[in-house]
Formats: sequence, C-alpha cells, structure tokens
Amino acid sequence: MEASTEKRVKDSFSRQTAMKTIGASITRVEQGAVTIELPFRSDLTQQNGFLHAGVVTMIIDTACGYAALTRMPDSTTVLSAEYKVNFLSPAEGEKLIARGRVIKPGRTLTVCYGEVYAQKDGAEKLVATMMATMISRKETGLED
Amino acid sequence: MEASTEKRVKDSFSRQTAMKTIGASITRVEQGAVTIELPFRSDLTQQNGFLHAGVVTMIIDTACGYAALTRMPDSTTVLSAEYKVNFLSPAEGEKLIARGRVIKPGRTLTVCYGEVYAQKDGAEKLVATMMATMISRKETGLED
Amino acid sequence: MEASTEKRVKDSFSRQTAMKTIGASITRVEQGAVTIELPFRSDLTQQNGFLHAGVVTMIIDTACGYAALTRMPDSTTVLSAEYKVNFLSPAEGEKLIARGRVIKPGRTLTVCYGEVYAQKDGAEKLVATMMATMISRKETGLED
Amino acid sequence: MEASTEKRVKDSFSRQTAMKTIGASITRVEQGAVTIELPFRSDLTQQNGFLHAGVVTMIIDTACGYAALTRMPDSTTVLSAEYKVNFLSPAEGEKLIARGRVIKPGRTLTVCYGEVYAQKDGAEKLVATMMATMISRKETGLED
Repeated sequence: MEASTEKRVKDSFSRQTAMKTIGASITRVEQGAVTIELPFRSDLTQQNGFLHAGVVTMIIDTACGYAALTRMPDSTTVLSAEYKVNFLSPAEGEKLIARGRVIKPGRTLTVCYGEVYAQKDGAEKLVATMMATMISRKETGLED
Repeated sequence: MEASTEKRVKDSFSRQTAMKTIGASITRVEQGAVTIELPFRSDLTQQNGFLHAGVVTMIIDTACGYAALTRMPDSTTVLSAEYKVNFLSPAEGEKLIARGRVIKPGRTLTVCYGEVYAQKDGAEKLVATMMATMISRKETGLED
Repeated sequence: MEASTEKRVKDSFSRQTAMKTIGASITRVEQGAVTIELPFRSDLTQQNGFLHAGVVTMIIDTACGYAALTRMPDSTTVLSAEYKVNFLSPAEGEKLIARGRVIKPGRTLTVCYGEVYAQKDGAEKLVATMMATMISRKETGLED
Repeated sequence: MEASTEKRVKDSFSRQTAMKTIGASITRVEQGAVTIELPFRSDLTQQNGFLHAGVVTMIIDTACGYAALTRMPDSTTVLSAEYKVNFLSPAEGEKLIARGRVIKPGRTLTVCYGEVYAQKDGAEKLVATMMATMISRKETGLED
C-alpha cells in the first residue's frame, strides 16, 4: 500500500467530527483493512449500561468504509450504501475494537465484512458482525 | 395503548445516555410506533459534513427498539438482535426524524421497519430505511 | 408507464428459466411496482412442508428486480446487488404473492422494498419482507 | 460431533423436496459447518443465463441452517429468521459450492456466515456471502 493511501484515509477520518465526539481513533490502516478503537464511555450507553448498538455500528461502519477507501482511486470519497449488523454479545468492557476488511473491491461498489470485539479483562469477545456495501463517489459530486 | 406503556418507554429512553449525548429526543410513542428526532449538529458528521451513517442508525435503531417494546410485556427489556439499513440520500438539513414501527410482533422476536427523514427548508426527504429484529429479554437476565 | 416498459419486463421474465421451473408467473407490472405469484407445490418445500425460504426469496427478489427495471433506461439489465429478507410466518397455503416496489430509484442503484403474502382459505398473511439494492448494467457488459 | 448429529441433519435435508427439485446435495457435515453443492442447470437461471440469485440463496440458506442445527439440541428443528446476501460475481460455471458455518450459537438464535463459490475450469470464485439468523423450534410446535 502506498503511503499516500494511509494519509488519505487518516485525513478523511480526521474530518469525521462524529468520531472525535465519541472518542474513537483509527489505529491501523492496511491495504483493504482498517481498525478503529473506542474506549468505553458511560455517556454512550443504552438503557442497560452497554454501549449503544448504534455506537457499535458507527465504528464498524467507519472501519469498513475506510477499508474500502484504501482500494479506491485518489480523488474519490466513500459513502455507505447499505449495511447489516448482527449483535452477538453485549458491548461492555474496557474498549471496543472494530476491524473492517474488503471482501470484494469494485469500480463503483465495494463489499466489506467487519467485526467488533469487546476487550474486557485482557480477553476479546465478538460483539457484532457487519456486512456492508460501500460506494465510491467523486469528491466534487456526491449525488447519484 | 396504556399510559404505563408510554411511561415505560420514556423511562427506558431516559436511561440511554447515548441519546442524551447526541441530543436526540423521543417525540411520539404509540402502540407499535415510536418517533425520535435529532437536530443537526456539526459534531456528529462524517468527512463530507453530512450526519454520520452510524448516527442515522442510532436514532432509527432506538425508534424501532421502542416501537417493539410497546408490544412487549412489562418486566421485559428490548435489545437489537440485528438490523439492516439502506442509505438513500445525504443526512443534511435542520433535523432528522426517525419513525420506527412494528411489522410483526412476537413472544421472543419482533420485526420492525423504520424510516429516517431529513427536514430541510420545510420539506422532508427520505434518508434511510431500516429492517430490524428486536429481541425481548427479562429485565433480570440479559444473557441468552 | 409506457407499454414498451411492460413488454421489456415480461420479455426478460420469460427468459428466467428458474421462474418457469418453479411455476411462478408475473401478474402485474406498473411503474415502480411488480407482482409475482407462485402456486404452492409440494416439491418446493423445506423439512416441515412449508415452501423453502429460498423459494420465497426467489419470487420477491424477482418482483423487486423488475420493479427496479421499470425505472431504468432501455438497453439496461438489472442484477441483485444485495438483499435482506425477514421471515415472519410459515409459507403455506394455496399460493404466494410477492409484491416489489421501488423506494428510491437511481442511475446506478435502485433500492426496493418487497412483501410476500401467503393466500390461504381466502385470507392473506404476511410471510416475508425484503429490502434490496438492485444495480443496472448495460446489456452488453455485466462486469463491474 | 456425534454420529447422530450428522444423521439428524441428513434426514432433515432429505425431507427438503426443494433441494431435490433443484438437484442440490449435502456433501459435508461437521460440528458448526455444512457444505451444499449444486451442479449448474440451465433451467435455474435468470435472464442473462446465470444461476438465479434466489437459487444461490436457497443453497447457502440451507447450508447455514444445517450448520446451525448441528449446534442445537435433539428434538429441535431449524428455521430461517432472517438473512442478508451480497452478490459479488455472476453464478456461472460447472457447479456452486455453498459453505455455511456458525459464528455464534445460542439457545434460541444462532448466527451464521456463509459463502457460495462457483467452480469453473478448476478454479473457485466467490459468488455470494450470507449473514443469517437461524431460530430453533421444538419439532412439535413451530409457531412463535
């Protein structure tokens, strides 16, 4: 992977104010694979004190999206066309680790698979899986 | 719908710290249908300045979950088992309105459909749709 | 809707040998909406004697795909990019009726929603719902 | 895995008349993983001569369902609660191979992941991926 690709992903991530607001960081960028981490925060929970399913979705969506971007040409941006998430265990522990990777790159559509793990007492537990379709758009014209 | 059902939903919503953090409020509770609203905030965006897909997901997940809860017995809590979201238009404008409703109630699983609209200059535009499976759990034991 | 659109859809349907094999027919073509019907057949069941979930999927996939095609330009063909199905009731009765409709048309991607009903003793019961992304391709080049 | 589990899966598969109708066979049963194969047949295609997306879905649904059944107690049957499929390449070649496996077993719900490969000229190509929720039911009472 070219160094410019990692820079492009990190620059785009830094413009995602939502990631800063929840305290997520991008910890790994590889060709076709990106990792996002989120320390547990008690102001991001649902009614039982677990991290909200939508928050879990936010970080794995972002990991999958940027995994897709590493396979797209310069001068494109990436948008989520659709995704599906299955929730397997409560999102609790010290932090969440979201790993997204490209299953099938394409000129327009890129299909990704992602997993979110909860790190608790040194062990990792699978919390959620995502299957997503990402779409590439020219920076200068997002509309279809 | 009994008044106690609305109270149960609103009490549970008030325990969702994630909803308070993003500034969402619950504006309507009916039998099998719930509406959540989120004013636009520039600290919840993705790289192009639209509201983050995961934030859109958070509010429609919550609307669908509580729509399901209105059909569940007292002394249960609701969790998202899985959902799928299609993104149709950029999430921009003054505010988002997420409407979730029950398609099929069940003793264990409740299937819901939801839509998110962006309100901009007085008009509403469909931003995203969700199909979700919600699961009921006894308050006192969340594990499967 | 132009008459040529209905003809285009029906011509394409008639080339779907899979539809003939299971005995499905196209019973309605409107702008953005298509209906497919399938009489119950005991050679299309799963282990409990209900119509196989995959057979239910076949007809609603086809209904959604052709609903999308009614909104696409001539000289294009339609392919399923992805879909999600929720199964709500056993697929039993005299026949299944699958109704697909366009939620959001687009130049490349068209998002559809579909429902399958089982007709039994004169009543209709909702069996399954689909949310699908259909993609348009030039007739002469299917590859991405 | 106990021998009785493989027998239970194969007995149930043999009652799926839909699998016989399309010519699919079950070629491997392991603890938490099942393989189904389908030779290409020109009477199972869509309008471009590829195997119909719904047919692809039928075999991976069945593979995922029986993968789940290997992890369920005796005296239960398995039903598809919901699934999502992404289509990555045209389903063409000599035969399709569908491999389903359990990601997360559960007392009521079991989440599975599946892949369908097309075998063509000795090579395998990924055609589709599935993420599915399977539900266990007592043999004697399917209703929720």
